[in-house]
Amino acid sequence: MKNTFGNSVAVTLFGESHGEYIGAVIDGLAPGIEIKREYIEHMLFLRRPDGKISTPRKEKDEFRIVSGMINGKTTGTPLTILIPNENVNSSDYAELKTVARPAHADYTAQCKYHGYQDSRGGGHFSGRITAALVAAGAICKSALEAKGIFIGTHVKKCAGIQDRDFSDYTADITALGEKTFAVLDSNCEEPMKNSILEAASEGDSVGGVLETAIIGIPAGVGEPWFDSAESMLSHMMFSIPAVKGIEFGAGFGIADMKGSTANDSLRMKDGKIVTETNNNGGINGGITNGMPVIFRTAIKPTPTIFKAQDTVDFMSLTDALIEPKGRHDPAIVHRARVVQDAAAAIVICDMLSMRFGTDWLCES
Amino acid sequence: MKNTFGNSVAVTLFGESHGEYIGAVIDGLAPGIEIKREYIEHMLFLRRPDGKISTPRKEKDEFRIVSGMINGKTTGTPLTILIPNENVNSSDYAELKTVARPAHADYTAQCKYHGYQDSRGGGHFSGRITAALVAAGAICKSALEAKGIFIGTHVKKCAGIQDRDFSDYTADITALGEKTFAVLDSNCEEPMKNSILEAASEGDSVGGVLETAIIGIPAGVGEPWFDSAESMLSHMMFSIPAVKGIEFGAGFGIADMKGSTANDSLRMKDGKIVTETNNNGGINGGITNGMPVIFRTAIKPTPTIFKAQDTVDFMSLTDALIEPKGRHDPAIVHRARVVQDAAAAIVICDMLSMRFGTDWLCES
Amino acid sequence: MKNTFGNSVAVTLFGESHGEYIGAVIDGLAPGIEIKREYIEHMLFLRRPDGKISTPRKEKDEFRIVSGMINGKTTGTPLTILIPNENVNSSDYAELKTVARPAHADYTAQCKYHGYQDSRGGGHFSGRITAALVAAGAICKSALEAKGIFIGTHVKKCAGIQDRDFSDYTADITALGEKTFAVLDSNCEEPMKNSILEAASEGDSVGGVLETAIIGIPAGVGEPWFDSAESMLSHMMFSIPAVKGIEFGAGFGIADMKGSTANDSLRMKDGKIVTETNNNGGINGGITNGMPVIFRTAIKPTPTIFKAQDTVDFMSLTDALIEPKGRHDPAIVHRARVVQDAAAAIVICDMLSMRFGTDWLCES
Amino acid sequence: MKNTFGNSVAVTLFGESHGEYIGAVIDGLAPGIEIKREYIEHMLFLRRPDGKISTPRKEKDEFRIVSGMINGKTTGTPLTILIPNENVNSSDYAELKTVARPAHADYTAQCKYHGYQDSRGGGHFSGRITAALVAAGAICKSALEAKGIFIGTHVKKCAGIQDRDFSDYTADITALGEKTFAVLDSNCEEPMKNSILEAASEGDSVGGVLETAIIGIPAGVGEPWFDSAESMLSHMMFSIPAVKGIEFGAGFGIADMKGSTANDSLRMKDGKIVTETNNNGGINGGITNGMPVIFRTAIKPTPTIFKAQDTVDFMSLTDALIEPKGRHDPAIVHRARVVQDAAAAIVICDMLSMRFGTDWLCES
Repeated sequence: MKNTFGNSVAVTLFGESHGEYIGAVIDGLAPGIEIKREYIEHMLFLRRPDGKISTPRKEKDEFRIVSGMINGKTTGTPLTILIPNENVNSSDYAELKTVARPAHADYTAQCKYHGYQDSRGGGHFSGRITAALVAAGAICKSALEAKGIFIGTHVKKCAGIQDRDFSDYTADITALGEKTFAVLDSNCEEPMKNSILEAASEGDSVGGVLETAIIGIPAGVGEPWFDSAESMLSHMMFSIPAVKGIEFGAGFGIADMKGSTANDSLRMKDGKIVTETNNNGGINGGITNGMPVIFRTAIKPTPTIFKAQDTVDFMSLTDALIEPKGRHDPAIVHRARVVQDAAAAIVICDMLSMRFGTDWLCES
Repeated sequence: MKNTFGNSVAVTLFGESHGEYIGAVIDGLAPGIEIKREYIEHMLFLRRPDGKISTPRKEKDEFRIVSGMINGKTTGTPLTILIPNENVNSSDYAELKTVARPAHADYTAQCKYHGYQDSRGGGHFSGRITAALVAAGAICKSALEAKGIFIGTHVKKCAGIQDRDFSDYTADITALGEKTFAVLDSNCEEPMKNSILEAASEGDSVGGVLETAIIGIPAGVGEPWFDSAESMLSHMMFSIPAVKGIEFGAGFGIADMKGSTANDSLRMKDGKIVTETNNNGGINGGITNGMPVIFRTAIKPTPTIFKAQDTVDFMSLTDALIEPKGRHDPAIVHRARVVQDAAAAIVICDMLSMRFGTDWLCES
Repeated sequence: MKNTFGNSVAVTLFGESHGEYIGAVIDGLAPGIEIKREYIEHMLFLRRPDGKISTPRKEKDEFRIVSGMINGKTTGTPLTILIPNENVNSSDYAELKTVARPAHADYTAQCKYHGYQDSRGGGHFSGRITAALVAAGAICKSALEAKGIFIGTHVKKCAGIQDRDFSDYTADITALGEKTFAVLDSNCEEPMKNSILEAASEGDSVGGVLETAIIGIPAGVGEPWFDSAESMLSHMMFSIPAVKGIEFGAGFGIADMKGSTANDSLRMKDGKIVTETNNNGGINGGITNGMPVIFRTAIKPTPTIFKAQDTVDFMSLTDALIEPKGRHDPAIVHRARVVQDAAAAIVICDMLSMRFGTDWLCES
Repeated sequence: MKNTFGNSVAVTLFGESHGEYIGAVIDGLAPGIEIKREYIEHMLFLRRPDGKISTPRKEKDEFRIVSGMINGKTTGTPLTILIPNENVNSSDYAELKTVARPAHADYTAQCKYHGYQDSRGGGHFSGRITAALVAAGAICKSALEAKGIFIGTHVKKCAGIQDRDFSDYTADITALGEKTFAVLDSNCEEPMKNSILEAASEGDSVGGVLETAIIGIPAGVGEPWFDSAESMLSHMMFSIPAVKGIEFGAGFGIADMKGSTANDSLRMKDGKIVTETNNNGGINGGITNGMPVIFRTAIKPTPTIFKAQDTVDFMSLTDALIEPKGRHDPAIVHRARVVQDAAAAIVICDMLSMRFGTDWLCES
């Protein structure tokens, strides 16, 4: 469905970097869910560049909810979020940029949209659009918390520096919620930031790995074969720009294990069934098992760098050289983490509403 | 949609390990596509255990196409493939197995199906069902070849032993088509097999990594934000049992690169736009760029092992011990590769039919 | 989705008139639903021609359930029904019939399938395929009855003769379940049958109107704007061959009413909210109101008649004359009623499972 | 998908009568389609009440396109239309109205949204939302005209007065485009209007029948079994408030015909295959045959009338009396016709883009 994702709870995204608005429509949310403006604002704040290790474009992200809410609660009908693009040249006319920026969507957009794409600031492919995804996901994430389901993402790796693993999930997720630079081990923060700034000083950029934990999902959620929990989550995560890989539990590491190590033993604990390890990331056969759902994504380095790069002009079909000027994010991994939280929340809301019905999110 | 995947070309899977039939319905295939029985048989043969490094259950996989084909060509209406399960006890009555096998879907199936699941031989979660996926995918793969699109998967890693990368895609893919143990560097075959047999002798199992290359897809295919080429492929791949991760191009490796290395430079070559590296795996912004689409999946070690393992009885809610007897696959990675080929072919047929229309696969 | 309908409970249909099997896959059924073979057999029996006013092709409709059922109950995984086509020439080769039968799909199938369609006996467009729909719907209908939801369809009009309206819904629906010729007023049966036989004796055919009542659906079901209860039901009903119209409640009659007559007054009755009339057919704003859902479909006369008709040869593009020989149904309306019951049951199962969750059908 | 309709071209609707904006997102439109503001404005103008036979709420419908358009053409990414609600009390707080208006969605909305629905002015169920559908459909309709496909709807019946049938489709559709009160036979206009005013003077309302013709659709479009041309069109049409029935071609009239009359004979004419009658409404077996697609909908009388009516208070569960004051439309059939045009255009764009590919609408 292109720009709509979800079966029971579905999000439709729209907008371009330099258009009038970006936004999202969330359809299928249960009625009576409380909309917490500060919660949404905080998640948008976490996504915003901080002006030091990120580009200083100052978007206040002053979103408006223009449908689907009344008296501060969802109505059950489509909820629409609008975020104005500020400082945007309102001129409708725009020239197509024909020298492709390497690793961006410039050339592929040309192949798909035949020159009609909005190429100002990356257009529909701009990371800017994730602000709408974050706002929509914030509503979902907040609704899930009211049901005892919590989501947290940290920068597991950046510029080669590793953060520690999750240990106490509840405490770790709570702590992450407040951090502007989301690492579990605070000692990682400065080294990571320094590496980012160092890359920036060279006109270069760095990538990283984001790790997400979701706790509180009941066992028995997921629709194999094709709508397994992993399938739904990965489908959504690859929608986030710069994601080039996803792995659950031990992920690619499991490929090197033997079965006797990889298999998660089951045990009774306080009357509940748990696993002693979580190499399967809380999912067996595509269905949740009640353990934390754990996944990691690979975030590529920001494609925009300030070095001369070989490229082509896709209209004249000639080789070209590109050397961007100005200021851009030398890393986006620390900002993308809240996008990943939001995106995960949308998927989980959808899966649970399919499983337990359209009123589930508002049932007490 | 649970057991149906696809928008324009859609595959519906059904069946259980010990049921009468497993099978698939392919809907939306263009009319006039030639059905090559030997092609399907060969892919089914490649999926079958060989009796040495795989379990010797002898399924002949004698499939029948019972709708949607006439005179050896697709009609354009749903094509149904039936594969009988042989040597299956036809008794309708079956007892629920309540001691969960670790890393299997036994416990999660219980949570979802409340005891009504068919637990004989893994039921709907059995790898057996992939035979139907392979048959369906074989038809799609063969149709794509007639359009100049080729798919090949090799065992990139098994038991820690690495195969070489793709070099000459056309030659490599052609070579893989004939191999029963799919490695690009033949020198890997014996060491991998020996490692598998060694694990087997210990009652253990091994996993691995599968790498797939798809060549010939035109640039401009993929529907961002949500139905990006990566999203569609990953959604499908996580339907394959045992897959715990997927990465495109440089994948998780890209997280450690700088932008200046990760960015794929563009160049004109023989009048065509190409990239000099392929760290993005042939996809930018969710849309194909005309380069080979490259992805790798992490395959976990076969969960069934012949060692005592801690587990629970999910009905009595007590701790238990399980120690399977008999003979099972010490590895499935070498068999899963043809499943991955098939699964990829289904996705690509769907995406191209959405992009270019329902007749595209039969147009000359 | 072409040959798959439904979001939570989805049915995939396949098969051709002269193929090996026709069948259906029902995906998303809750686990633990009892499968009553006699119930399915009875509905298939009601669909079958009786040899007097219908064509005497003797299909025993000996269906098999080959997946998704164990110990007589649904497993929760895809349930597959196969119905063999008997007395079918097993030869794979078939010649395309190029003289289009008027009002059949011969010419339109050619436009869509370019000559690759199976034209033997109408192929995928044959009314024969409805047997699979009936079998699938029988399972859904039986499951709904266990939840207190009942569906009944009668021949409201045939050859211009009108049956009475529903009066006591429970009693009427129960009575219809046993009738082979489904009229509420038994006095209509002979006149209708005679009119059918009279048309048959002239080599002609007749049509009619089918009226369906569904009782027991809770208020609050339906997903406006686009997945209103009427939208979902009509989408499905137009899949039934020969349906050319559908109307809810007073239907086209409401167009001639004034608001003061058309509006259904609400009243409290035994502590429940009811309407005094039911001109809206149990649906307001696309959502059920707890009253019986009532709709009627227009069934066109059987297209196959034994009179010479003007037509074309769509390959040679020349005018032609067609005059079928043999024996065909002079009416199908009395057989189609059970197809309408079945089709409605599928839609209602899907809507309720979306609304109340995937386990709802098996909850007690 | 609730508030999203379509597979290749999909429209998402949002908004409430008294919210800040109503609007629509059109996803999947081909790039390069010209957006004609006057065309959209004209269709919105035709939907607006005229102040005499319709309610005088003066909405200027000053829509803005805030994404998916640049330089006056579609980009190929989601196009978002916003229409502000004017003169709306911006207060966020609103009291739930608990006395149900008969034949409105008040009570059913309560059953579905549990008191959280926006009940001001009908909320999400208001006919006001159709303005967004009209704007979206206007873009689709204009795009279809560039491909030679034309759509026109007239008031076939109103207050019991019949308009003539279509005769010269091209001329009739062209003429309808300019009419503010869409009848083919101008002599019907005054009698219909007088009947509407007469009903109004009694505090009552009238309904009618709308007939739509679509010309220029190629033969071979439609996806049986379930996504037949009739299924897709009816699914959409029942989304329009007040529609209680739909029929194609001869519709319910065909139920009274014999096959020899109902069957549309085929003939060669100017090298093309045509039918001599069009009782099947341009569709056989769910697939278009190249003849005009013809359907009619039953529009119920406006539910709001100025007479005392029995009803209930759904919170206190007591009988109640309602007698609206003020001014409302005594008929909406003459305004709904442009909604029907728009809705049909969306469906046809979707079906053709599925059939012929995502670029089809922009190909020349």
